[in-house]
Amino acid sequence: MTLILGNEDVDGLLTMRDVIAALEPAYRNIAEGRAVAGGRVDLVGETSYDSGARYWLKMASGVVPDLEVGTVRINSDIVTWPRHGNKTRRVKAPLAPGNRWVGLVLLFSSATGEPLAIFPDGAIQRLRVAGSTGLSIKHMARENAETLGLLGTGWQAGAHLEAASAVRPIKRANVFSPNAEHRARFAHEMSEKHGLEVIAADTPEEAVRGADIVITATNSMDNIFFPEWVEAGQHLATIRDGEFATTVLERVDLLAIHDPGNMGDDHIIAPPGLTIPDLGKEIAEVEGFDQVLKAPTLAQVVAGRAPARERDDQVTCFLNYHGLGFQFTATGAAFYAKALEAGRGHELPTDWFTEDVHP
Amino acid sequence: MTLILGNEDVDGLLTMRDVIAALEPAYRNIAEGRAVAGGRVDLVGETSYDSGARYWLKMASGVVPDLEVGTVRINSDIVTWPRHGNKTRRVKAPLAPGNRWVGLVLLFSSATGEPLAIFPDGAIQRLRVAGSTGLSIKHMARENAETLGLLGTGWQAGAHLEAASAVRPIKRANVFSPNAEHRARFAHEMSEKHGLEVIAADTPEEAVRGADIVITATNSMDNIFFPEWVEAGQHLATIRDGEFATTVLERVDLLAIHDPGNMGDDHIIAPPGLTIPDLGKEIAEVEGFDQVLKAPTLAQVVAGRAPARERDDQVTCFLNYHGLGFQFTATGAAFYAKALEAGRGHELPTDWFTEDVHP
Repeated sequence: MTLILGNEDVDGLLTMRDVIAALEPAYRNIAEGRAVAGGRVDLVGETSYDSGARYWLKMASGVVPDLEVGTVRINSDIVTWPRHGNKTRRVKAPLAPGNRWVGLVLLFSSATGEPLAIFPDGAIQRLRVAGSTGLSIKHMARENAETLGLLGTGWQAGAHLEAASAVRPIKRANVFSPNAEHRARFAHEMSEKHGLEVIAADTPEEAVRGADIVITATNSMDNIFFPEWVEAGQHLATIRDGEFATTVLERVDLLAIHDPGNMGDDHIIAPPGLTIPDLGKEIAEVEGFDQVLKAPTLAQVVAGRAPARERDDQVTCFLNYHGLGFQFTATGAAFYAKALEAGRGHELPTDWFTEDVHP
Repeated sequence: MTLILGNEDVDGLLTMRDVIAALEPAYRNIAEGRAVAGGRVDLVGETSYDSGARYWLKMASGVVPDLEVGTVRINSDIVTWPRHGNKTRRVKAPLAPGNRWVGLVLLFSSATGEPLAIFPDGAIQRLRVAGSTGLSIKHMARENAETLGLLGTGWQAGAHLEAASAVRPIKRANVFSPNAEHRARFAHEMSEKHGLEVIAADTPEEAVRGADIVITATNSMDNIFFPEWVEAGQHLATIRDGEFATTVLERVDLLAIHDPGNMGDDHIIAPPGLTIPDLGKEIAEVEGFDQVLKAPTLAQVVAGRAPARERDDQVTCFLNYHGLGFQFTATGAAFYAKALEAGRGHELPTDWFTEDVHP
């Protein structure tokens, strides 16, 4: 049988601790050359929805033999670039029936080839991004880190607070987002949920001042964290290219990235002449990018194959964007195992997704 | 609703003429820079099935905006290399439940992003390969071609006979395969099915002698067609790297390929140090490969952007291997439209494959 699972099946089933426990050996496998990461490809073409929009078909994949699984993640999006005042934002339009988006993970057995499960990428995405930041904290932040400065109060921010708490004895988090109501609600909800002190700060600088760990987890297209705010001994993490002013990296002693091969626009395949509004704004364009590409990967850090923090006053940093398919493989395998045990999802005959010929 | 279709739904529904009619505008779109091809990625890792086997997760994709679709094809295979005497063959082991293989096509709408259908790749694969050869015959072979020399009597060979007949007034086919019984049965069955003279030849040379069109459609790992057999005015097509002795190309006046970027091993991602028995035996290794890479693509030929046949005595040739994802897009869209009309398949709620969040 092949399981069809939903985002709602993740809730209450897969904890952040489960995710970090699944990601850690997979990261180690990558560094050891046992798991296979990569394979990101984006095909971009016109869409009949709107001449200014683009159809964006994105794939990423991974194989983790130790977990006996491989996955393909597929996103099938209509991307639009509406203008707000003099700014342009990148917005995925929910045009599937019921105003929904399309992101799927297919989980296969690397022992038999069979499709074990198909599920949306949303809930897993949130967990794997925050889980990776959690891993970076576990391996790079000071052991005694107990305060968190968090910019962002959305979906990812909540998961990041949980991830930090899963690996360090966090006692207090100072949070900021531009909307005062959002940050007040977030502070209230997270205090209740995690039983720690969460304080809404009035400015971003106030949120990060004195923090042992600083995380930016927003949708901002603008720089929101600056080098003059960096303090000795901090661990920094960002989930989005551009949240950190690029000069922040000049303050960093130990940097880790996902994969040097995955940070440019090389994976984007589009017809010649097709315009894509937000290409060319990548960090690849900025000064110092060569140095970023030479940084160790988080996999090397986790496997002990990159220099570790030696002193409490060092600044460490993880650029948690342009992630890799094997994160879905590890997180997806953990989700599948839990869902199977709990009897979740719709069971379909595996025969529907296999065949008696091989082309 | 999202349709789950099977290989059996293709039979009696999608004809070779439908496939060629679907492929032709898609090929033209590719040459015009309107459709997007490519994105082939193979991840290869260990499998717990056997230490000498490999888990092979293969993806190819395409977007054809004029058809309002994008597709991802995924193959999840356990590849083995058993020895027979002093030869090694590449064999995909059918290890999914019921001794089945795993190849899937996911068809998405480029207007809304939604998943329209999921179906196995088998029946479509056979049609798209033969359909592409058919297109090459339509655009490269002599108008009056009426005899076919066919090496191979399997699944692909049958489809190729059909494809040639769909675009040229084929009157006779001479067929050869090493097993006399196979070729006799094939000749009998194809004569009945297509109402033309199909003759089992005693040698491969006899099968191709005097033919206007020569097609090799086998699983052979050895050369089976040689330059001394080439005759003026023939159109040649092969579905597998190595069927033609490489020196055959010296006899060719007009050559077409699928895509120069898709012929090497660049798309294979494996852990460093993992052995893969049959890598490095690709045509990329042989003399004259540079010239092959400079050949026009079939898309350019179809769009009239490459030199066409000028004289009846020219030898034309199409290397129909390392095909492209957009062939599945075009063929899959035609299949989906027919299946929808005929009420085939299992209907599942599209909500199972979409989500109300976007990561």
